[in-house]
Amino acid sequence: MITSTTNKQVKYVSSLVKKARARREEDLFVAEGLRMCQEIPPERLAALYLSESVSRTPEGRELAGRTSRVEVVSDEVFRALSDTQSPQGILALVRQYHYTLEDAARTSRDGGGPALIMVLERLQDPGNLGTILRAGEGAGVTGVLMDRETADIYNPKVIRSTMGSILRVPFCYTEDLHRDLAALKEKGVTLFAAHLEGKRSYDQEDYTGDTAFLIGNEANGLSDGTARLADTYIRIPMEGAVESLNAAVASAVLMFEAARQRRR
Amino acid sequence: MITSTTNKQVKYVSSLVKKARARREEDLFVAEGLRMCQEIPPERLAALYLSESVSRTPEGRELAGRTSRVEVVSDEVFRALSDTQSPQGILALVRQYHYTLEDAARTSRDGGGPALIMVLERLQDPGNLGTILRAGEGAGVTGVLMDRETADIYNPKVIRSTMGSILRVPFCYTEDLHRDLAALKEKGVTLFAAHLEGKRSYDQEDYTGDTAFLIGNEANGLSDGTARLADTYIRIPMEGAVESLNAAVASAVLMFEAARQRRR
Repeated sequence: MITSTTNKQVKYVSSLVKKARARREEDLFVAEGLRMCQEIPPERLAALYLSESVSRTPEGRELAGRTSRVEVVSDEVFRALSDTQSPQGILALVRQYHYTLEDAARTSRDGGGPALIMVLERLQDPGNLGTILRAGEGAGVTGVLMDRETADIYNPKVIRSTMGSILRVPFCYTEDLHRDLAALKEKGVTLFAAHLEGKRSYDQEDYTGDTAFLIGNEANGLSDGTARLADTYIRIPMEGAVESLNAAVASAVLMFEAARQRRR
Repeated sequence: MITSTTNKQVKYVSSLVKKARARREEDLFVAEGLRMCQEIPPERLAALYLSESVSRTPEGRELAGRTSRVEVVSDEVFRALSDTQSPQGILALVRQYHYTLEDAARTSRDGGGPALIMVLERLQDPGNLGTILRAGEGAGVTGVLMDRETADIYNPKVIRSTMGSILRVPFCYTEDLHRDLAALKEKGVTLFAAHLEGKRSYDQEDYTGDTAFLIGNEANGLSDGTARLADTYIRIPMEGAVESLNAAVASAVLMFEAARQRRR
């Protein structure tokens, strides 16, 4: 059992929790909590850390049986490792995903159903990003495409708020958003931008074909260059003095409208 | 100018930022940021604190002209006062609201349009609460009813995420949620509960009449006793392995479906 926070492994895990660069270099990310860790596919589970208390529980033992790389750490050390205020005593190192644009942007031309792609530009808030993945999986999103200025999807706050959807929804960071949006259009995907200049209400458009929603930065919206690539500007009609919605809320309203239309 | 964090006024404001009890006793809450503070109705503005830098700007001077109770504090002291990581240098003490149940639960019988009431039980996350107020104003929510176990609406994190909607949407904490829900039903309001046992999809119900949505705790949903008072259980159909949505996202999907129906 590891009982010291100066232990080499503890420092290693801490760096993965805190630093995007360390996660990238090690090709790993950190997931916490029982439910989340139970859902990790065996081939992705690189290592498991259990608090002493949890290691004695049936759930802890069952999880420990899934990998040969298990470490038990004292409860105090676990608290230092954890990114949460009330640690559950279960933390996994998980191998990063390497989806291609093709994975994250499959369309009906590739076989299967119509695409529902979320395109995120400069989205900054980890909670918003995680919430979009979680709600997105629920709404049937087929992939998420992000520019390099969007928050790190492997940030522990993102992982936590995805509630496991990080393990299931294909996603991809693009080096050239405009090029990839042009490629999507080429494949027949209609690009809808939630935009203050939108004339048509979001519920008056048809999302039953290959669809992508472009969502911009929380404070500034989409860049002009990206907005120009959209086929259609849409708006969410607003009562009162509200000018815009939280990015995750706006995304959810659009995604579930697409889901609603696809059920009909 | 106040230059010391041990100043009596600074300690007073800090206690209002940090403690629900202090806010309650003083009948005040704290709002930060230029936009938010510009929107505060004059009769609610109890005092204004500006950082030295902001006090020299045109916006700072304009705001300072609105009240006789203005204090300028050094930039360093302001950083200690602020609840945010990047303080804007503008903070207001605002008089609390004292809406009654009648204010927060006006129905078409009281004259005016149909009610759209959000009923929140044991909602814990301040960000969710604030987001529901903001999205709610946008969707045309007529009032928010909360039980005493719901987060403090005057928590600075709630205030911030409302983006000003706290100043416009009537809300009310109830001492007896079940009694007040019975009163709503009595007035002809239909109570819809987002519930895992819901059979009907949320978009198959009619929300054009007086409507209330019951939203429960993030982890545990509605209590059984409260769920039993609902007229109808609804569910948001979910793809993938997602079992539930973030409370603010679920609320938004329901509220904007009601708004959509009411536009037709």
